[in-house]
Parts: sequence; C-alpha cells; structure tokens
Amino acid sequence: MNFGEKLTSATRRNKSFLCVGLDPDLERMPEGVGILDFNKAIIDATSDLVCAYKLNFAFYEVLETQGLDALKQTVKHIPDDIPVIADAKRGDIGNTARAYARAIFDNLNFDAVTVSPYLGFDSIEPFTSYHDKGVFVLCRTSNPGAAEFQSMRCEMEPPTGAGTEASRLLFELVALKAGQWNTSGNIGLVVGATYPEELKLIRSHQPDMLLLIPGIGAQGGDLAAAVRYGVSPRGGRIILNSSRQVIYAAPGKDFAPAARRAAAGLREQINHYLPVPL
Amino acid sequence: MNFGEKLTSATRRNKSFLCVGLDPDLERMPEGVGILDFNKAIIDATSDLVCAYKLNFAFYEVLETQGLDALKQTVKHIPDDIPVIADAKRGDIGNTARAYARAIFDNLNFDAVTVSPYLGFDSIEPFTSYHDKGVFVLCRTSNPGAAEFQSMRCEMEPPTGAGTEASRLLFELVALKAGQWNTSGNIGLVVGATYPEELKLIRSHQPDMLLLIPGIGAQGGDLAAAVRYGVSPRGGRIILNSSRQVIYAAPGKDFAPAARRAAAGLREQINHYLPVPL
Repeated sequence: MNFGEKLTSATRRNKSFLCVGLDPDLERMPEGVGILDFNKAIIDATSDLVCAYKLNFAFYEVLETQGLDALKQTVKHIPDDIPVIADAKRGDIGNTARAYARAIFDNLNFDAVTVSPYLGFDSIEPFTSYHDKGVFVLCRTSNPGAAEFQSMRCEMEPPTGAGTEASRLLFELVALKAGQWNTSGNIGLVVGATYPEELKLIRSHQPDMLLLIPGIGAQGGDLAAAVRYGVSPRGGRIILNSSRQVIYAAPGKDFAPAARRAAAGLREQINHYLPVPL
Repeated sequence: MNFGEKLTSATRRNKSFLCVGLDPDLERMPEGVGILDFNKAIIDATSDLVCAYKLNFAFYEVLETQGLDALKQTVKHIPDDIPVIADAKRGDIGNTARAYARAIFDNLNFDAVTVSPYLGFDSIEPFTSYHDKGVFVLCRTSNPGAAEFQSMRCEMEPPTGAGTEASRLLFELVALKAGQWNTSGNIGLVVGATYPEELKLIRSHQPDMLLLIPGIGAQGGDLAAAVRYGVSPRGGRIILNSSRQVIYAAPGKDFAPAARRAAAGLREQINHYLPVPL
C-alpha cells in the first residue's frame, strides 16, 4: 500500500483526521520514563484514534545516537496500517537530497516526509521520485514569523499581460508550483492552522491536494476554521496534527490514558465540524 | 574564541579561503576505508591548507547511528583552531529550532551552521542567540533549480512610494533581511559560486558580511568570479567550499595525498585571484 492508500484506509477505519505528533521533550515528559517507552505508551493508547503519526526529527537528534535509536524503534512500533510522517523539513541540492531521502524512506521506513521549497523542485524531486511515499512541501507555516517571506507579494513568471492577475503571495506560488510538480500525485502541502485565511486561499488553489495542518492545540490554531477551510467538497483531505496537547495532556505517570482522552476529544471536535461525516 | 575570530585566525595562519567539505559517499570512497578513517586522513592531509571544514549532515544521517558517531568523532578530530561548519540547512518553528541548535552547537560542538530562511527570523533566532557561533542563511543556492523561488521578483514591504525602488528578487530580500537580523554580528550568507552575477549583487547589498560559497569544483562554479565578486574592499570575507574535487581527487588508497594536492592547488588558484594578498 502506498502512503495515500494507507492514509485513506486509516482515516476511514479510525474515523479520524487527527495526527499525533510524537515529539518527546525531556523537560516535559514524566520523570523516569524513557522516550521509547513514552512513545510506545502513547501509540498503544491512541492508535485506534488517529489517521497518522508524525515525528519531528529535532527532538530525536538532540538526544544523539540514543535519540536516533528511539526514532527508529518508534517507527517500528507503530502498526503497519498507520502511516508515519518524518517531519524533517529537509531542503538541499540534488545529490544531498538523495542521501536524505534514502535515510528517511529506505533506512527509517517512513511513509512521508516534510520538505522546504526554498531550493526549488530539484531539491524535492529526490523525495517525490519515491512514488509510494508522500511529500509535504512547506507552504504557510504555523509560526508567528511565517509571513516574513511567505507572505511577500511576488510577480508571477513569466510576467502576465494587462488585465490578468500579475502577482501572488509567495506561499500561493509555492502552492501553485507544487501542483505543477505533482505528476505522481504524492505531493501535499504544510499549512498552519494558525492562519485560517491563508489556509482558505491555499485550498482554493489546490482543491484536491492533501494538506498537513499543524498548529492546533498548544500553538493556538483555530480548529473549526481549519476543518471548514481544509476539507474540500472536491475531495481534498486534511491531516490535523497535534503534538503537545495530546502527549503532554497529563504531567505524571497517567500520561497515556490522558493522551487517549485528549486524542479522543480532538477527534470528536474535528468530526463535529465536518460537513459530511467520515 | 568565537567562530569569527577562529575563522579569521585560521584564514591568516593558513593563508587560505578554502573550506573542505567532508561529505563521505560510500559509492565514491576507496574500498575498505571506513568513513571516520577517510575523514581523519583527509583532515590530517589538509589542515594546514584550509580556513574551515564543512560537514553536510545528509551523508552522515544516511549511515544511521554509525554515521552519527562518525560525524561526532570527525568534529573531535579537527584541530581546535579550525572552525567546523554544520551544513544542516535546518529551518523549523521556535521550540523545534531550539532543539536543533542544542543538537548542533551544544552536543556536537560545531562552530557554525547553515539554516533556511523560509520560516522567517523566529526560526533562525534560536541559532543566532548563540553569540559565539556562526549562522549562514541560505540566500542564493548553487543548484540548477535555485532560481525557481529565489529569483522571483517580490515587493519590498512596506510598499514604497513613487520614485523609490519597489521590488527586489527574493534572494536579495533575504540578504537585506539578514542584515537587519545581524545585531550580534554572527550571521553570514550562503551564495553559490555557480551564479556569479547574483553573488555580485548580494555583495553590493552586504559589503561586510561573511559569505559561504559552495559550488566550485564538481558543481562547475566560476572560481575567479567567486573571488573577484566575493572578496570586498569593505572587508567582507568569503569561505569557498569544495567537497568532491578535494576528497575524491583520487579513487584509490592514495586519496589523502591526492586530496592534499587538490586542496593546495585550489588554495593557490583562489589566492591568485585575490586583489590583495592574504
């Protein structure tokens, strides 16, 4: 099963657009619990409630070889029928990007990856050429400073004639380009829930594309708007990611049942806003 | 000694603007030589000829824990008075970027890092807040598709009045913004040697800023133009990186003396083009 099929199947089976971000932070985890045990307990408590898991590499890389080992073992522990996204935000020139793609897809066995668009398509093609894998291009990110470059107004190229629209915001151009690159149908976009109007605009440009939407929960994104603008009557799907609100739902030893309650609550909230039930 | 002082000292001592990229690729390395031994031999053969070393993380990450261990041991093997750049091209939201910065600066002990600008300054500030470290922001990269976004024409903000320049290419805006962010004086820019006219333009915007210039050698960048446009009468310095042309100068067991000859030759070529001797 390729990434898209696995995602569709998990979404339907668990009636869920919720992705749980497994981003272990030693300062916030319960004392005396190792990160692999922490992740395994979260996975065991939530795997019937989610459509995917997402692992942000920074939280593993900071723990060195022990972290890398936990990353690998965590992916192995996730049931085969739930897709796993490598939130690595890589972006490098061709031969280097190929090494990153091998690391993430061949060695670590992730189903999908996040990548940065700044270097252009030749930095992304080494990932999209794995046709059975998903590739999410950063479009409008969830952080406070996202607009600094992403919302700059840029000219369309080639320059258009009088009477046609001649400029777009940079994130719109990324969304439009991603559509052109998507010849294998395995490209999605990362769009923060913290910017609902931008999400609406991106969905208008790409009515069919899969959107990975972080920023609900701890980052304060608008869940209702994310669902309303993200789910498309044309069939475009969403993956709504929450990390901290789920995995740190309780600070003590009862973190796993607390994570389950938080995930179940989020799933219900999301489904409540759906125009058509899953 | 902070990154800038260490770099200046190594540049003067070795009369060199050359940085050697330690990017081990199992397919190109001599048979039967492990990557740590390969790196150590290259370092021992070139450490009196360079101003810095640069390690691209992809080539280590693809080798999993063994690669991460080799990365760490390689940094330890490099003499303390030569700065080491982590070519990681990271770019993520604040709390995640802080984890990457800790991994690269605190754990692995790199002197500098490369970062992507797409998420804006709040994704870069966790790195620049290490005042003794260097941070190179991707500006105009060396790859064939770099222009796709980087050379889009974008409006300056706030919109300027009639008669003033109202637009710039995206990479120019990155260079200008980097100057605004540079309150601690530890920001540099990555500018590919493969685009000399863009390099010239960037140098005109940032006459004092340190430029990290990859793309000479295997990527076919113009060395003479890189030196002519990169070295600034105002004092702006360059770091010219070559990876493959040096480390794979010979395919067999004599790779280390061959790397030394290649590095010495490049150093001489670079110095030949300098307007004023080092």
